[in-house]
Amino acid sequence: MGSDSDWPVMSAAAEALDELGVPYEADVVSAHRMPVDMLGYGQDAAGRGLRVIIAGAGGAAHLPGMLAAVTELPVIGVPVPLRHLDGLDSLLSIVQMPAGVPVATVSVGGARNAGLLAARILGAGEGPQALRLRAAMRDYQERMRREARAKGASLREPSPSR
Amino acid sequence: MGSDSDWPVMSAAAEALDELGVPYEADVVSAHRMPVDMLGYGQDAAGRGLRVIIAGAGGAAHLPGMLAAVTELPVIGVPVPLRHLDGLDSLLSIVQMPAGVPVATVSVGGARNAGLLAARILGAGEGPQALRLRAAMRDYQERMRREARAKGASLREPSPSR
Amino acid sequence: MGSDSDWPVMSAAAEALDELGVPYEADVVSAHRMPVDMLGYGQDAAGRGLRVIIAGAGGAAHLPGMLAAVTELPVIGVPVPLRHLDGLDSLLSIVQMPAGVPVATVSVGGARNAGLLAARILGAGEGPQALRLRAAMRDYQERMRREARAKGASLREPSPSR
Amino acid sequence: MGSDSDWPVMSAAAEALDELGVPYEADVVSAHRMPVDMLGYGQDAAGRGLRVIIAGAGGAAHLPGMLAAVTELPVIGVPVPLRHLDGLDSLLSIVQMPAGVPVATVSVGGARNAGLLAARILGAGEGPQALRLRAAMRDYQERMRREARAKGASLREPSPSR
Amino acid sequence: MGSDSDWPVMSAAAEALDELGVPYEADVVSAHRMPVDMLGYGQDAAGRGLRVIIAGAGGAAHLPGMLAAVTELPVIGVPVPLRHLDGLDSLLSIVQMPAGVPVATVSVGGARNAGLLAARILGAGEGPQALRLRAAMRDYQERMRREARAKGASLREPSPSR
Amino acid sequence: MGSDSDWPVMSAAAEALDELGVPYEADVVSAHRMPVDMLGYGQDAAGRGLRVIIAGAGGAAHLPGMLAAVTELPVIGVPVPLRHLDGLDSLLSIVQMPAGVPVATVSVGGARNAGLLAARILGAGEGPQALRLRAAMRDYQERMRREARAKGASLREPSPSR
Amino acid sequence: MGSDSDWPVMSAAAEALDELGVPYEADVVSAHRMPVDMLGYGQDAAGRGLRVIIAGAGGAAHLPGMLAAVTELPVIGVPVPLRHLDGLDSLLSIVQMPAGVPVATVSVGGARNAGLLAARILGAGEGPQALRLRAAMRDYQERMRREARAKGASLREPSPSR
Amino acid sequence: MGSDSDWPVMSAAAEALDELGVPYEADVVSAHRMPVDMLGYGQDAAGRGLRVIIAGAGGAAHLPGMLAAVTELPVIGVPVPLRHLDGLDSLLSIVQMPAGVPVATVSVGGARNAGLLAARILGAGEGPQALRLRAAMRDYQERMRREARAKGASLREPSPSR
Repeated sequence: MGSDSDWPVMSAAAEALDELGVPYEADVVSAHRMPVDMLGYGQDAAGRGLRVIIAGAGGAAHLPGMLAAVTELPVIGVPVPLRHLDGLDSLLSIVQMPAGVPVATVSVGGARNAGLLAARILGAGEGPQALRLRAAMRDYQERMRREARAKGASLREPSPSR
Repeated sequence: MGSDSDWPVMSAAAEALDELGVPYEADVVSAHRMPVDMLGYGQDAAGRGLRVIIAGAGGAAHLPGMLAAVTELPVIGVPVPLRHLDGLDSLLSIVQMPAGVPVATVSVGGARNAGLLAARILGAGEGPQALRLRAAMRDYQERMRREARAKGASLREPSPSR
Repeated sequence: MGSDSDWPVMSAAAEALDELGVPYEADVVSAHRMPVDMLGYGQDAAGRGLRVIIAGAGGAAHLPGMLAAVTELPVIGVPVPLRHLDGLDSLLSIVQMPAGVPVATVSVGGARNAGLLAARILGAGEGPQALRLRAAMRDYQERMRREARAKGASLREPSPSR
Repeated sequence: MGSDSDWPVMSAAAEALDELGVPYEADVVSAHRMPVDMLGYGQDAAGRGLRVIIAGAGGAAHLPGMLAAVTELPVIGVPVPLRHLDGLDSLLSIVQMPAGVPVATVSVGGARNAGLLAARILGAGEGPQALRLRAAMRDYQERMRREARAKGASLREPSPSR
Repeated sequence: MGSDSDWPVMSAAAEALDELGVPYEADVVSAHRMPVDMLGYGQDAAGRGLRVIIAGAGGAAHLPGMLAAVTELPVIGVPVPLRHLDGLDSLLSIVQMPAGVPVATVSVGGARNAGLLAARILGAGEGPQALRLRAAMRDYQERMRREARAKGASLREPSPSR
Repeated sequence: MGSDSDWPVMSAAAEALDELGVPYEADVVSAHRMPVDMLGYGQDAAGRGLRVIIAGAGGAAHLPGMLAAVTELPVIGVPVPLRHLDGLDSLLSIVQMPAGVPVATVSVGGARNAGLLAARILGAGEGPQALRLRAAMRDYQERMRREARAKGASLREPSPSR
Repeated sequence: MGSDSDWPVMSAAAEALDELGVPYEADVVSAHRMPVDMLGYGQDAAGRGLRVIIAGAGGAAHLPGMLAAVTELPVIGVPVPLRHLDGLDSLLSIVQMPAGVPVATVSVGGARNAGLLAARILGAGEGPQALRLRAAMRDYQERMRREARAKGASLREPSPSR
Repeated sequence: MGSDSDWPVMSAAAEALDELGVPYEADVVSAHRMPVDMLGYGQDAAGRGLRVIIAGAGGAAHLPGMLAAVTELPVIGVPVPLRHLDGLDSLLSIVQMPAGVPVATVSVGGARNAGLLAARILGAGEGPQALRLRAAMRDYQERMRREARAKGASLREPSPSR
């Protein structure tokens, strides 16, 4: 993420990865305050064994796109909403990348989905870890389905709180 | 894609995949006009051996999110701009997914980047194909770099057209 | 509705139906977390005797449009505002449906109007219930008129609070 | 509609009603240029045997909401896009109605869906016409499904145009 | 105004008129809840001796435009911000009137300016009241100027609060 | 107006004034290119016998607000749409004036309404010219009503063009 | 700034200048409430030895553009967010200047960056002060870099707050 | 600029600099396609004797902000409008920079103003070139004033084209 002030938003990505048993590192890599280190981080990422990068940033959010420019890995961008404009600036700054350099953008503040998307990406490959992640994702989806159905059942029951 | 009228936009994804030697299938799967078949398409995708789904749709664009709801694969959403509102409705309908069901959204009309992102995703895994795709992506990035530098060089030369 | 967290908004639809004596069922049917059940809900609705569906959802709000795709009944969509973007994403995701699959959209957070619109729709048909609902709607409109006039009268009177 | 200049947009509603065998009348009723006649039109509509009103208007689009204020019938609003702002003003002017007076809003320029929604509303009641319309809507949906599938099939075949 | 809930915003118009000694009446006239009375209010306004109408409304704000359609008087529209969309819907619903029926629109929540604009309008005519109002407006502008200069002076002075 | 390139838009104001027999002067007064002359124009306007100022400008449109700051006359602002952003910038730059300095804003490109509003303002005063303008405005409204009704009648007649 | 109510936002510009040792004056100069003084301020600025002007204003924010119209100095505009529309109106009113009169616009509420930009501008010239400011800016950038890296290091350490 | 496709927009900056006799270099420096070269360009700029950088980019426009992150010089950002969203994405991506790294943003497509702003910045310093540029800017402003006045005069003359 571009600043540790983004952590309250971005920690939801870490939680999702924890739940699915995907190891990760969390770091502050600012496009604007440490641009050379930032490019270096992106250039080294694949070689260090990273397989997906999740980058959250707000306002004129350049971090996801700049990392995508120097790595061959998939980069997921999380538009962090700042005090003004409700994240619309963050969203457009991340998603409207020119042809050639894609960023996989999730919703404004959607860090949990960034973690889940990273898991789906790692599950798209071959090998036992990918198989495990695909199965874990199906389990997760089944769990969501059961919880949603339970909520409906509880709403259908007459209760004093309604 | 949701309609064959999206093909002029979406064919750029196919071109990118062709350039990188990634096999794919192109199909019309409409969330609104064939919803049951659409869910079936998504449910069968992983089992049929698909590894990534690229879904383009416009307006109240529900195709990417609905496919993401029934597959464990990564789904890439391409907001197709329609006659009014310049794709802003398509973008928000695709990117603002609730926690639990991620869609990897690219720019309005950004089908080429959807193809490139699919290749990056396939390159994030293990095995020889992933290695080949990561190398191909680095080559592609180096080619873009050379072309951009050549454009600068040609602009710096005095010419009558300036 | 797509989640029981939408109930604080959506309960106003239930209240309007209660006031007009229209029976209804309230349920959680999530397009994204239980997509197959959701399609089933829509496919069975007319056969079970439902005559109108009110669907509330927020963000990339796909529930109203997906239900409209599998039922021949009129579907009313309520854009539920979420934490960011103030419901604009919900509104566009619901209202901008492609030709062929209409959703009757009401205002952001406008669940009360969804209930009233359902009553108007049920009142548009033939038979005694329709006649009763048309009369009830005229009464309701007359009551609103009297209340609005009373507010004007009270404002015109001199008072210490002004 | 508010002006005969809206006819190129609004005629798609008439076509949909023609296809489904629903009788209708088309008229110019301007909220701003003939306000008293407009209210009279709305007040008389139910008594004259109309069952649904489709109102299209652009810019500060007041026609649908004003008709809804004086009739007990369901009113469908079609935001007609004008030269500037791409129909966003029309959409917000129609959909953001206050509690008490609902307008069933369709997409910007979505007159065909207004016609289909009117047919669904008439099909929501009791009696043979409603039964016929519900069946016609199911047929229409099945026809859309077959056409969408055919488009996919044609796209999957190798062709020189690709 | 369309509802007494608009009074906290609209009372600033009354205050401005009080300061300038312009007599006025305040009333609730709802376009949607009492449409016939509303048209009657507008039709009678000039005959009753009113010279300017200030109309505040929010959301799908139809009151200013409908009054302008039935009166020959200048109508000033105040976009009242509601809970969602921050008054953008109110602004567009009021200002984007079709050719033929003007509404003099002020800023979102700008009721004080509506009062001042009414005074300028009344000061644009002939006769002693108009002369008095033009002079009062010049005085008011001079007072604003002095206050603004005083604020600058106080800012330029060293103080512990800076 | 701020530039003679605004004349194609602004000439509609002149036409409306011509139709209603209201004398006027048309001039280029640029807030940004001749700021001192512009302030002088505004300061002298009332003394020269002008009674209303219509100011059209586009983009960061400062002309209407700056004139309103130096005159006691009512100022009507016309947001002129430029090549980008469709007049939204012009609209917000004109309408969102701070408390104290009102601008009577009309729709994007709504110069005809600016002319009509000026006539309504001149008709709001006392004396024979005001009486004549109020009557002319009623005539104009009646003419619009008849034309709108005629359009409805022509639409209701069966014709080969439908 | 246009009003002392802008000081809580604008004081961040003063702080940045204090940190970099750049002398400045702070004043209230309102485009709308003291237009003639405002033009005078701008006309005299270069002669009085000012080298850059920072102007903050909100809503229909005319101050930066009007000052830029009467001075040959660079003018930096700070869009101050007001209660409604989140500064979008302020931003567009400041940045969308017509060709010929540039305003160097910073982000909504971005007064600190306005101060830093002023320092960069003063550092762009010749002479010892410019050299000192360029060095100070490099120091500041290096300090930001170290702080950002420290934040990353602290995040990477295991801690109970995570 | 980020691409030679931006030259039709950006050449207006070069023209303005030519008119004012300010030497410059034009180059393609893409943040996304040649990120390392881009940072190098920015890092070397001050040392090579550049004094101001004008950077134009569109969509997720990262070039101006990234250059500002590695240089101590003032950076002027020009939002280049692309096919969709009319430059709003470009504008927000450039102007909404975080505190610490300012970009002097001009209007959408406002390259001419970028050139003029660069000249004002160079004129803000000490020495004969700065004096010459300040005088040239005053001349330019006087020329604009005369041309605007001439347009008003020509409009005031009766002519057959009116």
